[in-house]
Amino acid sequence: MFYFIIDILGTIAFAISGVLVAMDKKLDVFGVLIIAFVTAVGGGTLRDLLIGIKPVGWLNAPLFLLIIVVTVILTIIFVKQLKYVRKSLFLFDTIGIGLYTMVGVEKGLEAELSPIMCIALGTITACFGGVIRDILCNEIPVIFRKEIYATVCILGGVVYFIFIQFPINKTIAHSMAIATIIIMRILAVRFKISLPNIYRSSS
Amino acid sequence: MFYFIIDILGTIAFAISGVLVAMDKKLDVFGVLIIAFVTAVGGGTLRDLLIGIKPVGWLNAPLFLLIIVVTVILTIIFVKQLKYVRKSLFLFDTIGIGLYTMVGVEKGLEAELSPIMCIALGTITACFGGVIRDILCNEIPVIFRKEIYATVCILGGVVYFIFIQFPINKTIAHSMAIATIIIMRILAVRFKISLPNIYRSSS
Amino acid sequence: MFYFIIDILGTIAFAISGVLVAMDKKLDVFGVLIIAFVTAVGGGTLRDLLIGIKPVGWLNAPLFLLIIVVTVILTIIFVKQLKYVRKSLFLFDTIGIGLYTMVGVEKGLEAELSPIMCIALGTITACFGGVIRDILCNEIPVIFRKEIYATVCILGGVVYFIFIQFPINKTIAHSMAIATIIIMRILAVRFKISLPNIYRSSS
Repeated sequence: MFYFIIDILGTIAFAISGVLVAMDKKLDVFGVLIIAFVTAVGGGTLRDLLIGIKPVGWLNAPLFLLIIVVTVILTIIFVKQLKYVRKSLFLFDTIGIGLYTMVGVEKGLEAELSPIMCIALGTITACFGGVIRDILCNEIPVIFRKEIYATVCILGGVVYFIFIQFPINKTIAHSMAIATIIIMRILAVRFKISLPNIYRSSS
Repeated sequence: MFYFIIDILGTIAFAISGVLVAMDKKLDVFGVLIIAFVTAVGGGTLRDLLIGIKPVGWLNAPLFLLIIVVTVILTIIFVKQLKYVRKSLFLFDTIGIGLYTMVGVEKGLEAELSPIMCIALGTITACFGGVIRDILCNEIPVIFRKEIYATVCILGGVVYFIFIQFPINKTIAHSMAIATIIIMRILAVRFKISLPNIYRSSS
Repeated sequence: MFYFIIDILGTIAFAISGVLVAMDKKLDVFGVLIIAFVTAVGGGTLRDLLIGIKPVGWLNAPLFLLIIVVTVILTIIFVKQLKYVRKSLFLFDTIGIGLYTMVGVEKGLEAELSPIMCIALGTITACFGGVIRDILCNEIPVIFRKEIYATVCILGGVVYFIFIQFPINKTIAHSMAIATIIIMRILAVRFKISLPNIYRSSS
């Protein structure tokens, strides 16, 4: 139940980020809806395709389609008021990527893949909705350029696999990994931490 | 047999639209062929991947590959004469999206998905070839910006599910849905109907 | 064993081409890594998805992930020295597309697809990593514009299917096809052969 609520909050946060990018590109209502949808479900869809889960998850989750449609309508109407909830949105988004990373890791484990591939699938789940969003909007994906997003997911995955070496409850390992992702991301944004610049050093 | 002919006409119309966009970008012959191909089969391919149909349909349909190759060659040669068949092309294209929407809906029903997801798959089948075409050509997909294309497919899908509530022949429901899509699209283009503008109202 | 070494060399060459395109776009370390990865495995991934092989190959090949990571790090450090190995890189890349074309053809045959579809899958395996790389970097794919790359793969596939009509060893057919691809590509680059220009003739 707790996970379910996080999943909904994460979906809403992801959909809103899609709406904002799409409106910035002046897309029409249908375009905005599609971008919001792929931002919210794209990462999980790519993960399901790569593993071979059929059909992909969202085809059996009409509730999430409904949530996304309502989110899109409300966001379009209240787009000017969004700035007042900017911090909540950032928090939902961050909790969302924490949760989605763990969902991806679990799906990888179910498919009996190695830890490193599970971490890759977790990162894909959390990050590739945004990648597809940016490609559809004709932008180089933002996580390839400046956001530290993905690195944080990888770290979270590593923390999870370290913790499950010990005789502790799996839920605790989950929680520690999600907490790592949330804290690292907040610190990264707060202190403007980014990946090391490879261009100055190589020129 | 009737469906088969529509399918071929639709494929030709879609392939031609691919050739035109690709030539506008000055791609070479191979690029033009690939763009024509993905425009024609991209929507059905994405649908098959999402549902988990293996292999994707076109891998067992060499006839359509042949039709697309011939269409590409003829279109490149007669590109200047295309304007004389513009209306026929628009008609084929419109009949094509009507048919493809219904094909997508049927595949969704076969996979026992809910009506709303069947409509989503129908719309994907009809519209995402064009989306992939535009992405490969480095453009924001035209159906996200101004074409009313997708909305018409969704309407057609809704009409279909309304009709099959009644004790009527499935073929009639199909025909009514396809007719709805064709008529709505022609009206939309004729009277320049577009989706409501969300930007003026929100600024 | 021989194939295995070629596979590794091809992966390295593909990954380096990804790094170079990504660095040209000033992506951060994570972006460079992802672009290198999709360039190296993207073609095979798309092929596996289309055929319905689950999970896609790289999820069970952590060795290649490691090779790509090491390649990325070394390429970033020694990017200025790369020009001294430009010819070796071109050779690895060319041998790689020869091998990958044949791998794709074989996977198609295993899935009992027709020769023309096997050739299509071979070409996708060899070429679509670069297509996805260019799309993620917001460029029209280079093989749609000027490289003769794909045409050479198609020719190699045709050579293979001609040879296996005769009572000869399959390995010989493979070798002849790969040799065709390598020689044709070297000749094409050396003599600046490109596809016939369709624009002058049609204007």
